[in-house]
Amino acid sequence: MKITLAQQSNLENIDYDNLPFGVNFTDHMLVCHFENGAWQEPEIRPFGNLNATFALHALHYGQAAFEGMKAYRNQEGEVALFRPERNWERLNKSAERLLMPQVPHEVFIDGLKKLIEIDQAWVPQDEVKSLYIRPYLFSSSEFIAARPSERYTFAIICSPVGPYYAGAVKVKIEDVFTRAASGGIGFTKAAGNYGGAFYPTAKAIEEGYNQVIWTDHANHELIEESGTMNIMLRIGDKMITPPLTDRILAGITRDSIVTLLREWGHDVEERPIKVAEVVEAARNGELKEAFGMGTAAVVSVIQQIGFKGERFDIPTPEDGIASKIRKGLNDIRLGRVEDTHNWMVKVK
Amino acid sequence: MKITLAQQSNLENIDYDNLPFGVNFTDHMLVCHFENGAWQEPEIRPFGNLNATFALHALHYGQAAFEGMKAYRNQEGEVALFRPERNWERLNKSAERLLMPQVPHEVFIDGLKKLIEIDQAWVPQDEVKSLYIRPYLFSSSEFIAARPSERYTFAIICSPVGPYYAGAVKVKIEDVFTRAASGGIGFTKAAGNYGGAFYPTAKAIEEGYNQVIWTDHANHELIEESGTMNIMLRIGDKMITPPLTDRILAGITRDSIVTLLREWGHDVEERPIKVAEVVEAARNGELKEAFGMGTAAVVSVIQQIGFKGERFDIPTPEDGIASKIRKGLNDIRLGRVEDTHNWMVKVK
Ligand SMILES: Cc1ncc(COP(=O)(O)O)c(C=O)c1O
Ligand SMILES: Cc1ncc(COP(=O)(O)O)c(C=O)c1O
Repeated sequence: MKITLAQQSNLENIDYDNLPFGVNFTDHMLVCHFENGAWQEPEIRPFGNLNATFALHALHYGQAAFEGMKAYRNQEGEVALFRPERNWERLNKSAERLLMPQVPHEVFIDGLKKLIEIDQAWVPQDEVKSLYIRPYLFSSSEFIAARPSERYTFAIICSPVGPYYAGAVKVKIEDVFTRAASGGIGFTKAAGNYGGAFYPTAKAIEEGYNQVIWTDHANHELIEESGTMNIMLRIGDKMITPPLTDRILAGITRDSIVTLLREWGHDVEERPIKVAEVVEAARNGELKEAFGMGTAAVVSVIQQIGFKGERFDIPTPEDGIASKIRKGLNDIRLGRVEDTHNWMVKVK
Repeated sequence: MKITLAQQSNLENIDYDNLPFGVNFTDHMLVCHFENGAWQEPEIRPFGNLNATFALHALHYGQAAFEGMKAYRNQEGEVALFRPERNWERLNKSAERLLMPQVPHEVFIDGLKKLIEIDQAWVPQDEVKSLYIRPYLFSSSEFIAARPSERYTFAIICSPVGPYYAGAVKVKIEDVFTRAASGGIGFTKAAGNYGGAFYPTAKAIEEGYNQVIWTDHANHELIEESGTMNIMLRIGDKMITPPLTDRILAGITRDSIVTLLREWGHDVEERPIKVAEVVEAARNGELKEAFGMGTAAVVSVIQQIGFKGERFDIPTPEDGIASKIRKGLNDIRLGRVEDTHNWMVKVK
């Protein structure tokens, strides 16, 4: 690994009391190119220029996928990553479906650890702030023909962040637009999945919501996921979340929460959820809680669900499952309880 | 419009007898930024660097769409564009669905004309070669949060090209993977649509095909389109092509061919086409011709269609409709017949 350090740190110019999401970048980034059929030497260097022309393949053909993860500083002051192997595996799943090369473990994980070690001063010690990490892979040949790229670039950039949503969110169950189809790329973190979601989301925002809940491609009858979060519902005594299909991103937060809830004795069902069932449960008061689960927003309480113009307020109990699970995750991340699953990977 | 000319032309270094598609670029490009809610002054300058960091929005969230069109040199030596207004309109349809700003007529069309005027020496006078033009629009803010960009960049780059496919093509009717869904972005030229298509196409290529024919998202029962081409079938006495939906790109070549065929007295049907119908027609000899229609490949004769392991050879008559329509389009483009539809827009 080649390492070129920044001449001067930008850290002192960052206002940690006022951190917009993903706008400030740490001093360094990792860059590694795949060329002539092989990964080249990874390089850590000052955050900066792409060095690409207007023919950059990914801008034209969207052969690009990303990951999102966070580094936390625990109460002992140590910096650790949350389940980074899962992000590595998932990026490679995205890469396969988008016909991009697999990123080797030593490039992704070793590069990541070294990068965070170098920029560790940027990781805040805080209940709601952390260092957001963005590993990503994109096609970097310079031609314009609708065929796969020959060159690819893997990079990791990092940004200190605060909370993603200011408070509880309102979501609209989408019944016109579609995010993903069976046989498509919905299970990947392909760049293109996000660009296609902005317009429907903007429509929902115009109507006073924060996000949409996507439904299935065929009949818009099944609940899928929401924005950049998987969905958990508490209906009666059960915690219910849609099963993983090729239309849903397999969230690492979702997996962690399902694991913890089951350990805590909750009855968690992963099964298809009909929109009609949710609306019915919301109407008759059986829908006791709803929340989104994702790296950026962590646990995001849903206070209102809209469907075809009707709006249902959902209880947001302060001592509900959402609060309990948010605290449970934070306890692990900040080192306040034993990390029995070995989810935290310490950085030197 | 700001214009900065290249110090030296690269034209003499290009081997026009050996033109790979989209690899060589002309001396200049057009670049125009949308910033603070307004389009800035367009600039024509030497082809080159993006000037972006690794936080470039489009690489992460795929808010990006492109167009493809060509300039031809007619027998009088004049350079003309084929139906450029259609590309402008279509880019703006893509832009709307991807929540990007509309590109003004004077930026797209006036910029395009000026750019081609400046680089007109690059346009070959040839039956199968032309200047491929790539207008495109992408999100160019520099942050990493899954929300729409604030800054956008419109650019036009150009590449002299030869034929896209070497000869007749073999296509596989896709019955597992999906390109587009109702309510999705299939009708746009979003970058992400192409990245998602490479893997299924690579599978088809492994099986000895050149391309896939996409089928509908719900049941894979209806024929949609193929690679970067719309599909035309000659079954019995009729010319049949799928109707335009929000899952199919509304090809300008398709529109032009449908128009010409009807003028020539052919019975052209735009209607849903079942896979079963095509297989049946191929089996009993009623499928007399099949071809793809698109800017890059123009008219691409299909010599074989595969479905679930079965392969059907399709007639490729030398004096068939495909040849006739290819010649018809070329006659207009190269100025050998009167341009009764005013499809050609001359460049100074
Ligand atoms: C579409 C989508 N769904 C769900 C998630 C949640 O996944 P994770 O918990 O791994 O962050 C994300 C990513 O953040 C996402 O982009
Ligand atoms: C998916 C797709 N279908 C069809 C076409 C044909 O469209 P046009 O004839 O406008 O080039 C294209 C573009 O080239 C395309 O990308």
